[in-house]
Amino acid sequence: MEKITSRENKMIKEYGKLASSKSYRDKTGLFVIESVKLVKEAFLSGVEIEKVFVTQNCCERNDGVLQKLFETVRQSYEITEELEHKLSQTGNAQGIFAVCKKLDKQQNLDTMKKDGKYLFLVKLQDTGNLGTIIRTGEALGIDGIIVSKNTCDRYSMKVLRASMGSAFRMPVYQSEDTLGDMSKFREHFTTYAAVLDEEALPVGSFSFAENSMILIGNEGNGLDDEVADACHHKITIRMKGNAESFNAGMAAGILMWEMSK
Amino acid sequence: MEKITSRENKMIKEYGKLASSKSYRDKTGLFVIESVKLVKEAFLSGVEIEKVFVTQNCCERNDGVLQKLFETVRQSYEITEELEHKLSQTGNAQGIFAVCKKLDKQQNLDTMKKDGKYLFLVKLQDTGNLGTIIRTGEALGIDGIIVSKNTCDRYSMKVLRASMGSAFRMPVYQSEDTLGDMSKFREHFTTYAAVLDEEALPVGSFSFAENSMILIGNEGNGLDDEVADACHHKITIRMKGNAESFNAGMAAGILMWEMSK
Repeated sequence: MEKITSRENKMIKEYGKLASSKSYRDKTGLFVIESVKLVKEAFLSGVEIEKVFVTQNCCERNDGVLQKLFETVRQSYEITEELEHKLSQTGNAQGIFAVCKKLDKQQNLDTMKKDGKYLFLVKLQDTGNLGTIIRTGEALGIDGIIVSKNTCDRYSMKVLRASMGSAFRMPVYQSEDTLGDMSKFREHFTTYAAVLDEEALPVGSFSFAENSMILIGNEGNGLDDEVADACHHKITIRMKGNAESFNAGMAAGILMWEMSK
Repeated sequence: MEKITSRENKMIKEYGKLASSKSYRDKTGLFVIESVKLVKEAFLSGVEIEKVFVTQNCCERNDGVLQKLFETVRQSYEITEELEHKLSQTGNAQGIFAVCKKLDKQQNLDTMKKDGKYLFLVKLQDTGNLGTIIRTGEALGIDGIIVSKNTCDRYSMKVLRASMGSAFRMPVYQSEDTLGDMSKFREHFTTYAAVLDEEALPVGSFSFAENSMILIGNEGNGLDDEVADACHHKITIRMKGNAESFNAGMAAGILMWEMSK
């Protein structure tokens, strides 16, 4: 395994750029991950891994899955502990980093299940929420998640970590035109707008259709009116006490739970 | 309003100590909060506020609730922007800080509702999870939350922020002896241990009793066997896909949702 020791190495610099810049991730079609857990999950989930950087310490763990990975990925490099500290975004990389190819699942009605259960996240901002929603969606058997433009980047490390690897397996589609896509989705799915509105249908009082799609909006402002109005139904989780709202991730979890019943 | 300008001021130093040290919070019975939202929520929820530190900028916001608070809290001090930066833990304090008295709700069967719905969190570690669980619990009408020893501190700023003020209103009881308290709770509540076990009762297949208490364990390791065994029932949220587990906060949310139906 070739050894890299310089902070100025071109590949090391590129890793840093991929870690910090969404536009560079978009341009190159690559993203980066760190930690034994995430790299293994990516490998086992069939994510295409372009490069691996690993410390001697991590190499010596003698982990079967990782050994297999080093054999499979042609570009595997040993790095120093100094470089580990430079590359790590979380301070808990455990000596392993990978550059991966994006999973380019295009939003495409043809590849979506006609009787499936989907979530459409519109302008969700919190990376922890997005990751947790993807993780929960996989565990509850949701068929896919659509993310609108201006939703936080699903390839950010925080999303990938919070998803605990589910982001490598859950089909996530990008929507470039929320209202345009909604007019198509409406024809194939029963669409439900999650809103904070006492007059909306209380979740629990009705059954979701077989072919359901739930729309969830931004943490602070919810769904835009025109997006909510484009849905077949407005639904709400009734609240008690003085709480003003649910955390968007939690609301998504309860809604997916009900939808998946 | 008296003005404080020195970083060496005794009250400023005490604030910092309360912000960073759980044992100092325990010793003094005080905790600290920052941001307009949290300070207002505390005030409106009847939390006893001992001191307020506020920048001139924040004072001039001319906010009715805050003006009322400055009149009510005898120890209100103006601070400089330099001190604002020193005190802020989040970088988004909006110029206001408060020292509050802990809400000392003792864990006490006499004050718990005999037909209530409770959550018992055992060694939960993540402050964001705890805050979100408290917020969700209030919104779903849960009657109270018991936290075991070695659960993260409910008076840490991260918990209070994630709770969006619900932590000031939700009854939260401290348990010093999980198994000892369980033997008492068992007599009054139907107790359910949330576990990752295919043979446990699947949530959704049964109705929770009127007097229910759900136990949820640590993020990484779940409940200790002896705690789970002390419950009347073991329950589980069935998973699909390759997901290994739910996020503990999300699991708690889905369980509270089902319990509150």
